[in-house]
Amino acid sequence: MSISPLLIEKTVREALEEDLGHGFDLTTAATIPAGTDCRAEIISREKGILSGLISGLTAFSQIDPSLDIVVNKMDGHDLKSGDCIAEIEGSAQSIMIAERVCLNFLTHLSGIASATRQYVDAVKGTNAKITCTRKTLPGLRAFQKQAVRDGGGINHRHGLDDAILIKDNHIAVCGGIAEALQQAKGYAGHLTKIEIEVDTLDQLEQVLKCGLADVVMLDNMDTDTMTTAVNMIDGKLVSEASGGVSLKTVKSIADTGVDVISVGALTHSVTALDIGLDIQV
Amino acid sequence: MSISPLLIEKTVREALEEDLGHGFDLTTAATIPAGTDCRAEIISREKGILSGLISGLTAFSQIDPSLDIVVNKMDGHDLKSGDCIAEIEGSAQSIMIAERVCLNFLTHLSGIASATRQYVDAVKGTNAKITCTRKTLPGLRAFQKQAVRDGGGINHRHGLDDAILIKDNHIAVCGGIAEALQQAKGYAGHLTKIEIEVDTLDQLEQVLKCGLADVVMLDNMDTDTMTTAVNMIDGKLVSEASGGVSLKTVKSIADTGVDVISVGALTHSVTALDIGLDIQV
Amino acid sequence: MSISPLLIEKTVREALEEDLGHGFDLTTAATIPAGTDCRAEIISREKGILSGLISGLTAFSQIDPSLDIVVNKMDGHDLKSGDCIAEIEGSAQSIMIAERVCLNFLTHLSGIASATRQYVDAVKGTNAKITCTRKTLPGLRAFQKQAVRDGGGINHRHGLDDAILIKDNHIAVCGGIAEALQQAKGYAGHLTKIEIEVDTLDQLEQVLKCGLADVVMLDNMDTDTMTTAVNMIDGKLVSEASGGVSLKTVKSIADTGVDVISVGALTHSVTALDIGLDIQV
Amino acid sequence: MSISPLLIEKTVREALEEDLGHGFDLTTAATIPAGTDCRAEIISREKGILSGLISGLTAFSQIDPSLDIVVNKMDGHDLKSGDCIAEIEGSAQSIMIAERVCLNFLTHLSGIASATRQYVDAVKGTNAKITCTRKTLPGLRAFQKQAVRDGGGINHRHGLDDAILIKDNHIAVCGGIAEALQQAKGYAGHLTKIEIEVDTLDQLEQVLKCGLADVVMLDNMDTDTMTTAVNMIDGKLVSEASGGVSLKTVKSIADTGVDVISVGALTHSVTALDIGLDIQV
Amino acid sequence: MSISPLLIEKTVREALEEDLGHGFDLTTAATIPAGTDCRAEIISREKGILSGLISGLTAFSQIDPSLDIVVNKMDGHDLKSGDCIAEIEGSAQSIMIAERVCLNFLTHLSGIASATRQYVDAVKGTNAKITCTRKTLPGLRAFQKQAVRDGGGINHRHGLDDAILIKDNHIAVCGGIAEALQQAKGYAGHLTKIEIEVDTLDQLEQVLKCGLADVVMLDNMDTDTMTTAVNMIDGKLVSEASGGVSLKTVKSIADTGVDVISVGALTHSVTALDIGLDIQV
Amino acid sequence: MSISPLLIEKTVREALEEDLGHGFDLTTAATIPAGTDCRAEIISREKGILSGLISGLTAFSQIDPSLDIVVNKMDGHDLKSGDCIAEIEGSAQSIMIAERVCLNFLTHLSGIASATRQYVDAVKGTNAKITCTRKTLPGLRAFQKQAVRDGGGINHRHGLDDAILIKDNHIAVCGGIAEALQQAKGYAGHLTKIEIEVDTLDQLEQVLKCGLADVVMLDNMDTDTMTTAVNMIDGKLVSEASGGVSLKTVKSIADTGVDVISVGALTHSVTALDIGLDIQV
Repeated sequence: MSISPLLIEKTVREALEEDLGHGFDLTTAATIPAGTDCRAEIISREKGILSGLISGLTAFSQIDPSLDIVVNKMDGHDLKSGDCIAEIEGSAQSIMIAERVCLNFLTHLSGIASATRQYVDAVKGTNAKITCTRKTLPGLRAFQKQAVRDGGGINHRHGLDDAILIKDNHIAVCGGIAEALQQAKGYAGHLTKIEIEVDTLDQLEQVLKCGLADVVMLDNMDTDTMTTAVNMIDGKLVSEASGGVSLKTVKSIADTGVDVISVGALTHSVTALDIGLDIQV
Repeated sequence: MSISPLLIEKTVREALEEDLGHGFDLTTAATIPAGTDCRAEIISREKGILSGLISGLTAFSQIDPSLDIVVNKMDGHDLKSGDCIAEIEGSAQSIMIAERVCLNFLTHLSGIASATRQYVDAVKGTNAKITCTRKTLPGLRAFQKQAVRDGGGINHRHGLDDAILIKDNHIAVCGGIAEALQQAKGYAGHLTKIEIEVDTLDQLEQVLKCGLADVVMLDNMDTDTMTTAVNMIDGKLVSEASGGVSLKTVKSIADTGVDVISVGALTHSVTALDIGLDIQV
Repeated sequence: MSISPLLIEKTVREALEEDLGHGFDLTTAATIPAGTDCRAEIISREKGILSGLISGLTAFSQIDPSLDIVVNKMDGHDLKSGDCIAEIEGSAQSIMIAERVCLNFLTHLSGIASATRQYVDAVKGTNAKITCTRKTLPGLRAFQKQAVRDGGGINHRHGLDDAILIKDNHIAVCGGIAEALQQAKGYAGHLTKIEIEVDTLDQLEQVLKCGLADVVMLDNMDTDTMTTAVNMIDGKLVSEASGGVSLKTVKSIADTGVDVISVGALTHSVTALDIGLDIQV
Repeated sequence: MSISPLLIEKTVREALEEDLGHGFDLTTAATIPAGTDCRAEIISREKGILSGLISGLTAFSQIDPSLDIVVNKMDGHDLKSGDCIAEIEGSAQSIMIAERVCLNFLTHLSGIASATRQYVDAVKGTNAKITCTRKTLPGLRAFQKQAVRDGGGINHRHGLDDAILIKDNHIAVCGGIAEALQQAKGYAGHLTKIEIEVDTLDQLEQVLKCGLADVVMLDNMDTDTMTTAVNMIDGKLVSEASGGVSLKTVKSIADTGVDVISVGALTHSVTALDIGLDIQV
Repeated sequence: MSISPLLIEKTVREALEEDLGHGFDLTTAATIPAGTDCRAEIISREKGILSGLISGLTAFSQIDPSLDIVVNKMDGHDLKSGDCIAEIEGSAQSIMIAERVCLNFLTHLSGIASATRQYVDAVKGTNAKITCTRKTLPGLRAFQKQAVRDGGGINHRHGLDDAILIKDNHIAVCGGIAEALQQAKGYAGHLTKIEIEVDTLDQLEQVLKCGLADVVMLDNMDTDTMTTAVNMIDGKLVSEASGGVSLKTVKSIADTGVDVISVGALTHSVTALDIGLDIQV
Repeated sequence: MSISPLLIEKTVREALEEDLGHGFDLTTAATIPAGTDCRAEIISREKGILSGLISGLTAFSQIDPSLDIVVNKMDGHDLKSGDCIAEIEGSAQSIMIAERVCLNFLTHLSGIASATRQYVDAVKGTNAKITCTRKTLPGLRAFQKQAVRDGGGINHRHGLDDAILIKDNHIAVCGGIAEALQQAKGYAGHLTKIEIEVDTLDQLEQVLKCGLADVVMLDNMDTDTMTTAVNMIDGKLVSEASGGVSLKTVKSIADTGVDVISVGALTHSVTALDIGLDIQV
């Protein structure tokens, strides 16, 4: 159990309601007789990593709890073209109503997991872990975060409430790095981590001197500067590289020795994985 | 007024609630004094088409109705790098809380509008219009559909309820093209259009003979076959090309004379447009 | 499957919550022992057409999934006085809590279906179909629309979003019939029909000349004028008669040759069909 | 202030969402330019009693808080044909989007108030008050109850939770009138009234002997029996006549001396009052 | 069946959503393997009265409908330290996710029932019943009211809508006791009780003279005055003592002969009953 | 800005809906004329710490945005008996409808803040901070957590999602302390802290040896053992004392040198602070 079943049920229900609009599937009502059964297979049409399976299948069970569902693959599993992910059997009306919503979850989330895996593979052999950001699509954050994890990444904070991340604007308004870190330390509960963003080695120096942060974000540094930064940090803090990360640059960033690399594109610029539904009448 | 203000309010509120989690922005509460004001500018960092402005700005006004907002660009407008889209002035706490949710709407939807514009530009000089599909992201369909329109495209049906679209599986279960079209015609209200998918010229022949469809979808046809199909249709039905459309292929598809070209990637595989918030303390 | 099961579940749940108020059925809690079972029959007390059966029965299953339910009639079936529509067996507490909400759905929706059938019967032998309007009761539109269909009618548009209907005020603000139709054609997707209202033959002339509408609404015309209008239209557009339709006038309107007759009273002035619940202790 | 403003806001918002479906008014978006203003009048087209004004007007203010609204009539006021109930001025787009939802509330609720007034007038000169039942339309109970009051009636219980009403089935399961009344008295709080239904004078005798009820419902009695019943009750309990009440029979029922007459048709079989919106472009 | 199952489901679901925040139980996901089962017992760790059992157990069944649950005690039952209230068996992940929410309902509501029982026991031998007030915790009123009943108390009104309670401020604004009672009587339906608050015997005199109230609240009277008041009332109205009631004073208040004693602290100042979950791995 | 305004609006709206039930304040509608204004003061009737002010005042502004509100005290301020916290002026109907909901928030949350302050004062001079637990009341957690902070405490984790807290049962299922900590470390993101519960010095030894935890919970240890534990920890981890903490014992626990002391009773067994509303007619 990863994502709360209550969150899955709510999000999938709203997606079905969105698709059904005023409450009707006109095509199915018109052309599919009520008593007809069929069998459907969810098939991967390209190589990748599966994510969102429970969400996708919930579309079927919410429309019709009597459908029979067999699961062949699990979230995080490798997919190759032609793999049968799951099979659904029962009312043809029910299967056709839920098909598109199911696939909209599966293709988007598997796209995220697959891209994450590419980044994870690219840094293999280094110390670096791949993580996501808060640059997510409205309403889908938990699902996207889990997809990153299904692809082998780790999660950054889930929202504004589960960790403190002091950025340049916070520092500027608050009156400096030391001031901001002291305010944060005074406010944070004992289970709240504090991260602070730095753009220069000079700022990093100040952070290290303060000694109040748990994590430091090295923002938009070139790899030489970042290597120096990692040496300065010397394991006293967790280091996170951020800004301008792509599949082309990620290995050289990892080679600086940084602990974590955050990639916004994992969740804000997603290419869907091609997954389809084959129906045998 | 394009998207219902009630839908915008609901979707943005849920996005803010998602980001605020248990109800706190720990960083802002810790580091930004309550009485501090600031001024922020929403800046385009690359060339594209704007979409989602009202949604993005609603994030600010929902957190704090006292913020002053000045709008410089509207949905559908061209953006170039460095353009100031809107300015927000007021409580620094409020601006920092709403920043990320605002940008998550703007960058995603402007990404869709910008990609749509590229397709629209690519078919300039032909008769073809660019449209989207139901391959959208859960909870964001109306916003994505409007973004397609902001980019110069038209909208396919919004859901299962506002038009009949008979696909291969419906035909198979129903017992053939003629049977499916007759069932659909008997069921449809007088304000409901009927579209039917065909894969071959033989199927198209049957559709034309029936005379009950308003639109025919030419699915995954090569351009030669499609040209023949358009000639057979001869303006009696609206023709829609579907399947495997990319920026590379769209012009040759349009040259077949087809009326509408649907592009799933417009909404299922979106690259965010780079838009940021600059804060002057 | 006609109305989405998700919409039924939501609407019935809210109706039960409305009836239970602060969360208690005081009478049942006070007078019915927890372990007592009973058997109930839903009985038609007059002649008519059934509609809303799934909604009505959902009231019972939401209060108590362990109730046994046997269905004897389906939506759209003829009822005569004394017919047993369905039987419920199980906890007396559960049956008594859900009784009124069940009947409130059944009697209202069957009232609509029964009235629709009277209109449908009245125009038998003509070409005309009976349809509803957007003059529906808040929160019940999908249910009322389905009831019209259960009675043999067809559905007009479901809302402001699934078709374009240009009325006199739109024409006036837009600057004329031609202008309004051109704007509408430019805006509409390829699966959106366009209807326009006309009050005079002169306006109809303009609509026919434009050639951009799919349906024309002949609003409040006397039958002579309407006959002329139908002749002018000559099958080029679908024609809809609207305004002042009653059981007394509907046949003469149908005799003009019009395609569709819309009746607001079907959904805005409903007489409930008498259906009751008999409990055998 | 009669109905809670929070309930009005919620119910009207859901009605607008229902009408806007996927979030668009296609006709308005296509044909009404964004900057155009207009002026609208809500006009009564027949004689009756107004109800639902705040709900109806809330449709406009929810779509567009900048609309100017002037109110000429209040709930409970007499309307004659041609009366201007309220005026709205501002964006033509906003006014056209909200029009139908506004009128759907106004015409239905004013229909209830007007019918109630007819019953109230019919029993003028007697002691009897007119009341409603729980035979209401799902989701609209509070509005319908208030409309009954606007028409001069009083309210029966609002739901299963605000009073105890022991019906024949409760009596049967519980084991008799005395037993049911004792259970109810033991359960009821000191602010909960107890009503019991009787079909015969013999049952009434038992109720009077028990001395635990506050109100007795005389169900489906002919007027002679009811006169005897009222004499037996002799002011010791409140008496309510129920069953088969119509405008034709209500006066003779009132003449029996009964205190309250409940009329299910007031809320389950409503004829809308004709109210329209005139727009001056 | 006491509280509506729909209300229980909604409130428990929201409590689980509150605890799961962004949708994850990080600890369980990290440390408990998916296939591991366990057995848990809900154990009372002190003497008291059980309340909230269904709500508490619903937390488990909402997270995982496949858990096996055995119930040993029911709401209203006596608990002694060490009693096993219920047993849950199945997925260890599911049980650990739901544990805290279950206990938060059980310990709070059993705390209320237990305190109520102490008050009920304290007035044993007198005529007085113990009741609650509207001083409840937001969102939990129905649950708290039922807990009072589980402890042997009765319920005051559930909200502003199910009875009329005229307090000092209403009297002051309305212009006196007689005026307020007449307005109330004219407004109230025949199933609505009217209570009025008095602070002095002089005010009580006026209430008795009016003859329109059902219940009189004797607010903050010393016991001598209250005894006089009860004698003046002489059974013509129900009398309720209110203000400054504690376990120390309640018996002397009951000895005045008052019918009902309302205790705000029952629901506004609750000491949780110690109930825990023992897990056998 | 501490709690999200969106969360406050939602929770207060639901509390008002709960109190208004079927949508009516019968007493106010009956006895308070629509045009009457009044002035109200929120007065503390005993010494304590204020919390929940915005929530309480939101009850008034949601019922009637036209009410004038003046704020004299802020959350976290000291209150003495007789202090005027805020003043509200405007419609008497609106003020009376919202009064009870306002006070239910204020008295409960100020009760928490006041009790927290007592604990904080009791440990003055030591190193220990006071914190809360997840033993909160369903639906009120964010409000209760903020109240603890208003009283001078710090917050434990907000839910299952913002930190890892490994308890005895997790350890048992997972197969030991080292195993559980390794699993947790592998799963946790870089902004997630890990806490583990120990009951014995032997377990503490294992935790220290692993070196993977951020915080250790010393559960139900006597003060001698706890002193030894704190010495063993020697500042390498944050230490939290838990179990059986009361105002009597908290100082001796703090004297062990522990960093944080968690007190479940702060939120599960709350005594309301006496705050009332005085109305001047």
